[in-house]
Amino acid sequence: MERFFADPLLGAAAPMTSGVDNAFTACPVSPEVIIATSTLCGFAYTLYSYYVTSQAPFQVGKREDSDKEMPLAAEGGADVKLINSRLLKYAGLITRGALSFLYYEYICIIIFALLFSLVAGSALGYLTTTERGILTVIAYILGTSTSLLSGWIGMRIAVYANSRVALKCYDKLSAGFSLALSAGAVMGFSIMTLALFSLTSLIILYGVYFESSMTPGQQTITKKMFECIAGFGLGASTVAMFGRVGGGIFTKAADVGADIAGKLENDWDEDDPRNPAVIADNVGDNVGDIAGMGSDLFGSFAGSICAALVCCAQSPDLSKHSDYMMFPLVLAALGLIACIFSCLINIFCFSVKKDGDVELLLKRQLTLATIFCTLLVPTCYYFLPATFAVRGKEGVTWYHIAICCVNGLWSGLFIGMIAEYFTSGTYTPVKRLAVECKTSAATNIIQGLALGYKSCVIPITLVAGIVYINFSLARFLGISVGAIGILMTLASSLTIDAFGPITDNAGGLAEMCLMPEVVRERTDILDAAGNTTAAVGKGFAISSAMLVALGSFGAYAQTKQLIDAPMIGAFQFMGLIFGAVVPYYFFALTMESVGVAAGQMVEEVRRQLDEKHAAGVNGAPDASQDDCDSCIAIATNASLYEMIAPGSLIVLSPLMVGYLFGAEMLASFLLGAVVCSATMAVSASNTGGAWDNTKKFVKSGGLKEMLGENYDVKLHGKKSETHKNAIVGDTVGDPLKDTSGPALNIVMKLMAMVALVFAKSIPDEGVIQLLVRRMS
Amino acid sequence: MERFFADPLLGAAAPMTSGVDNAFTACPVSPEVIIATSTLCGFAYTLYSYYVTSQAPFQVGKREDSDKEMPLAAEGGADVKLINSRLLKYAGLITRGALSFLYYEYICIIIFALLFSLVAGSALGYLTTTERGILTVIAYILGTSTSLLSGWIGMRIAVYANSRVALKCYDKLSAGFSLALSAGAVMGFSIMTLALFSLTSLIILYGVYFESSMTPGQQTITKKMFECIAGFGLGASTVAMFGRVGGGIFTKAADVGADIAGKLENDWDEDDPRNPAVIADNVGDNVGDIAGMGSDLFGSFAGSICAALVCCAQSPDLSKHSDYMMFPLVLAALGLIACIFSCLINIFCFSVKKDGDVELLLKRQLTLATIFCTLLVPTCYYFLPATFAVRGKEGVTWYHIAICCVNGLWSGLFIGMIAEYFTSGTYTPVKRLAVECKTSAATNIIQGLALGYKSCVIPITLVAGIVYINFSLARFLGISVGAIGILMTLASSLTIDAFGPITDNAGGLAEMCLMPEVVRERTDILDAAGNTTAAVGKGFAISSAMLVALGSFGAYAQTKQLIDAPMIGAFQFMGLIFGAVVPYYFFALTMESVGVAAGQMVEEVRRQLDEKHAAGVNGAPDASQDDCDSCIAIATNASLYEMIAPGSLIVLSPLMVGYLFGAEMLASFLLGAVVCSATMAVSASNTGGAWDNTKKFVKSGGLKEMLGENYDVKLHGKKSETHKNAIVGDTVGDPLKDTSGPALNIVMKLMAMVALVFAKSIPDEGVIQLLVRRMS
Repeated sequence: MERFFADPLLGAAAPMTSGVDNAFTACPVSPEVIIATSTLCGFAYTLYSYYVTSQAPFQVGKREDSDKEMPLAAEGGADVKLINSRLLKYAGLITRGALSFLYYEYICIIIFALLFSLVAGSALGYLTTTERGILTVIAYILGTSTSLLSGWIGMRIAVYANSRVALKCYDKLSAGFSLALSAGAVMGFSIMTLALFSLTSLIILYGVYFESSMTPGQQTITKKMFECIAGFGLGASTVAMFGRVGGGIFTKAADVGADIAGKLENDWDEDDPRNPAVIADNVGDNVGDIAGMGSDLFGSFAGSICAALVCCAQSPDLSKHSDYMMFPLVLAALGLIACIFSCLINIFCFSVKKDGDVELLLKRQLTLATIFCTLLVPTCYYFLPATFAVRGKEGVTWYHIAICCVNGLWSGLFIGMIAEYFTSGTYTPVKRLAVECKTSAATNIIQGLALGYKSCVIPITLVAGIVYINFSLARFLGISVGAIGILMTLASSLTIDAFGPITDNAGGLAEMCLMPEVVRERTDILDAAGNTTAAVGKGFAISSAMLVALGSFGAYAQTKQLIDAPMIGAFQFMGLIFGAVVPYYFFALTMESVGVAAGQMVEEVRRQLDEKHAAGVNGAPDASQDDCDSCIAIATNASLYEMIAPGSLIVLSPLMVGYLFGAEMLASFLLGAVVCSATMAVSASNTGGAWDNTKKFVKSGGLKEMLGENYDVKLHGKKSETHKNAIVGDTVGDPLKDTSGPALNIVMKLMAMVALVFAKSIPDEGVIQLLVRRMS
Repeated sequence: MERFFADPLLGAAAPMTSGVDNAFTACPVSPEVIIATSTLCGFAYTLYSYYVTSQAPFQVGKREDSDKEMPLAAEGGADVKLINSRLLKYAGLITRGALSFLYYEYICIIIFALLFSLVAGSALGYLTTTERGILTVIAYILGTSTSLLSGWIGMRIAVYANSRVALKCYDKLSAGFSLALSAGAVMGFSIMTLALFSLTSLIILYGVYFESSMTPGQQTITKKMFECIAGFGLGASTVAMFGRVGGGIFTKAADVGADIAGKLENDWDEDDPRNPAVIADNVGDNVGDIAGMGSDLFGSFAGSICAALVCCAQSPDLSKHSDYMMFPLVLAALGLIACIFSCLINIFCFSVKKDGDVELLLKRQLTLATIFCTLLVPTCYYFLPATFAVRGKEGVTWYHIAICCVNGLWSGLFIGMIAEYFTSGTYTPVKRLAVECKTSAATNIIQGLALGYKSCVIPITLVAGIVYINFSLARFLGISVGAIGILMTLASSLTIDAFGPITDNAGGLAEMCLMPEVVRERTDILDAAGNTTAAVGKGFAISSAMLVALGSFGAYAQTKQLIDAPMIGAFQFMGLIFGAVVPYYFFALTMESVGVAAGQMVEEVRRQLDEKHAAGVNGAPDASQDDCDSCIAIATNASLYEMIAPGSLIVLSPLMVGYLFGAEMLASFLLGAVVCSATMAVSASNTGGAWDNTKKFVKSGGLKEMLGENYDVKLHGKKSETHKNAIVGDTVGDPLKDTSGPALNIVMKLMAMVALVFAKSIPDEGVIQLLVRRMS
């Protein structure tokens, strides 16, 4: 193939039209067709999964497999009426709580988004052009709304499915597994499809608008158009901030609060229905791991595509034709198709025959998706010119881009597997921690911290390598494409991510509704597999966040023409050091917030109990709906209030740095923040995950095998001193792994995204520099 | 004043001669005179302090104040003979242990230094010129020897003084205070004076050598000369690595080992003489806080001056005359004089009248030194040209340099005060932690970690600000001068740093030798004040390390002509990310090392006890000399063995990065490492310090005041559950604050120093780049 665009002027004449009227620019296959097809397939698969999920019964009934006619309820002599009524009550309470949190969170997000649109849009419009301000705000609002819609779908399906999964497990393990997987697929595929659909629509609409207002200086307009579209990524990241930070605070406040009020103050068991905070804890699982994780990855997905689009727009060759500009979306569309294939194969070709199959099937789904994506990536040959230039490099070819994409694709999986190695009870690190628990809580903490610090070495070095290779091959476009690569399997990875909290809640409901022991055993098998894949999911989240942040940083740097800015300078150093401090401050703020919110929760439980005593209620009856609601309200309010400080920190600090100290310092500020956030996020998540599994390992008697003859249940088993030491670690790890650690993903992405969206309004010389110059 | 060097050739003709033969270059005062005078004064003051210390009696005798004739021993009905014999034994054991550790450590250092000299010298000689290799090695060996000598003096005087301070406290508080301060002064002033003396001698000797072999290309030779002299800094930093890392592992292995063997396994008290690990613990205080802190600050001092000298040599104006080149040494000499003044004033004008005076006097000594230095700094007017150029900036004046220096001077003090705020029991943060201990060990750990993360925000931002101002004023010379500024008060800050461990050991000896209660009370007062000032000292260490690292980085960047290297690039990103990982890995390694070494110590104590039981010894007699010796030997071997991995990591990683990936990637690698090390070091030190003081706060009933009526000794006092929760935090904090945290100072400095010394041998394009180029 020859270079397509021999004549730049010719290319310039056909900016946003389809390939028909320009002989130079034809892609053999229209990207729109690919995107439309995959979006349709995505919607279809979502609906199919929803249909499957919705067929599950909500009350205890008969077995599904016809050869055993015995009604379910007869097993274990359970009381059908009691189970049904309790299920109705508690599943209802969880749904109610989750939707109530979502309601308040969404109000906050909408208020924030409107205010931010108003202020930021006006500022951007004032500092650059009104058009840019308005178009950015529209993209921002669309990004926000799409993310909100996805989050709502995810939450609804999760709280809908949890009780039904418990009931299916009543029947048999494989039925529960399939249902949980279908429910997860509704979330995973709806998010990816919605993101693809709304981004494509946005581009087409803006394309039409810009085409109609086109002037000869086309390249600039294309750039401008995609810089405006980056607002979509910012919108998605805004919701992600609320989801991850607010959700993270909610889930851990409820968890820690329920633990303290339950175990410490009243000697209740973990899922005791008398504890009104337990429902909040169950709601928290959904809030944190469904809405939080979903919005985080949605933000990454949108961010990576937006960053890639801005980078494409900076390329003189790619920006000449709309077909080529659609390329990042094509990659995502190919990923969606691969995900659908892998799901279908997994569902129809394999099934759960024994306990161990659950984890295998979940991992296979992800591995299959990755393999299919790898096979599909070379088709990017058809959607790119033979060679083209990106900002800073000539002669980029389709296989350069393909390598960048595959790099990302496999690195996500690999980093996930490393996270699993360091946090799973199957491998040495956690086993060693368990041995430390024998000595004291302190040694458990010391070695756990060391484990986390150590665990970040390989993943971060790997990301460094990928950044190096991708940047060498295609500069910042390579990095953004790497991020898209990680997220090509988004639908599959979200499916198995959602699997975890759904089965976790199913287990909680089985306990609360007094279902027979066997149900709890089955949900525990599902939950354990879900926990393992959750570690893999965290690897995806963090590696994608890092590449998205660097990609957005690159888009910012290109927009501000900073590619040749020197490494060494007063502002550079200050920016780097100052940027490094932000994640630390953020981390401290979110950790303290969990403490504050948990404290309020405990106060509320105490107040309720005191009131009951005062009213002469004997004993402690099960918590009423009002009790649970007020606990949820407290966690909701606390989490939303407590996220003001850390949230403002990450939204405002890049703007302040930019306006006060100028564009160059902002660049090094972002680099410092990304580097420190990434290392801290990996360490914190893995430390927390390892402590969690160490506790489970000790509790389940895992030390028995290791200690052999020296094992003594009283010393090393459940409720022993060793177990207590492990619990200390687990409690410390809770905010690390579910609040502060994952929230750092948002820190990286959002700060870079804010810089990108406001790039054009950020001055080369900040206020401080101007003042200094005027003074001297 | 006009610009001195109108004619560059004229200047070039008189490179290293005195000012007499060149009318353009005269300083009104000869810098050599200032340096010689202050060095002499420094030696004199050291000798005076030594004399005062040596006059203290070593056996229980009579009171010093003649109006009370009662012999000391009569107080509290103590048994004079027993005290004297025990004092002889235990003080002897500590001395023996400390010197034995020093012996083995020094053997390791000497072997390492010789091997390193051989390998590195040959490599450097082979890759550049033989002359450079030899001269660098000589400077390196001189730096190493001077640091070894200083360390030896510090350790000798500390172990000499501790028992005598206990005896003086037997008499009265102020006598103990004065003696401990004199002993500290011996260490502080000897280190600063020796450093100044040997660096000046080295410069004069090399000056003579280069003058004799001079060729017309003088500027290059001056640069080369000072690049060789940078080897002195590397030598000092090498010893610092062994001191801080090895010493840090020793002290915490002994501490944790003694605690586990004593409290957990045998129910002994803290300073029980039956526990053979107790002596190792006492030795550890000296090893960590005397030798470790001393070598760390010696390394910073040497490093800052070497970095400043290389930066001066890069300035065409300054390098034209030897007088101006001596300027960094003049600053240090002025500092020494200020320190002597402040000490004399403090000794002769003020005295300890009540308990609270101790802390006041210690702080006053530092504040006075800072004020005197500030007053002396403007005299740099006489030692610098009116205006001169540094690499990257024209028109630098003496007051620019003075501002840089004063910035450093006060920032050290200020950062120390912030550290004190976050870690002292007097202020809110620690009080809050104490309240958290009421709930559980886990909440104490969570909030303690948050406290540490939060505490790094202001100090690091402050350093960022200083880096910005100093770099703006005088580029990297400004940063190096800032580092010298912090270390101008080195003698005073080391004096009060050494005060802490001396009085700590004095307290331990008082307990072990069964001295009356009142002695322990007095040493506790001294020790508490020492702990507070230790926090200030840590602030000095960390802020100076950061500036020294950046200064050395700058010297490296100038040597490699990297000032205009771009910020954005594949190698830059990879370097930055990769550099950020090193501190994490280092941190994990050192934390694990403490665990391993402590485990070996516990094994040894068990073995000894088993042997005694087997030999039919009834009960547990006091530990014998052999018992203690073998414990010390274990800690020594473990600490030296365990530092191989982290030590190699920080020495070899910059070289590997440099040779494999080239000079540019090394630069960003260093930046990543400095930024991450600094934030982690501050957080870890403050977290650990806060937990330590929280434990003390709870133990001493500090919660009584806070809780008022709700206070219950059983719930919140000594040996209560709250106290146990505080102890968990303290144990976790031990390796954070005394091993891994402070060792990160070395990581920053040593890596930058290695890069600087090997700068000329590091290729612009590394092996990997060459391979890639050959392949493509």
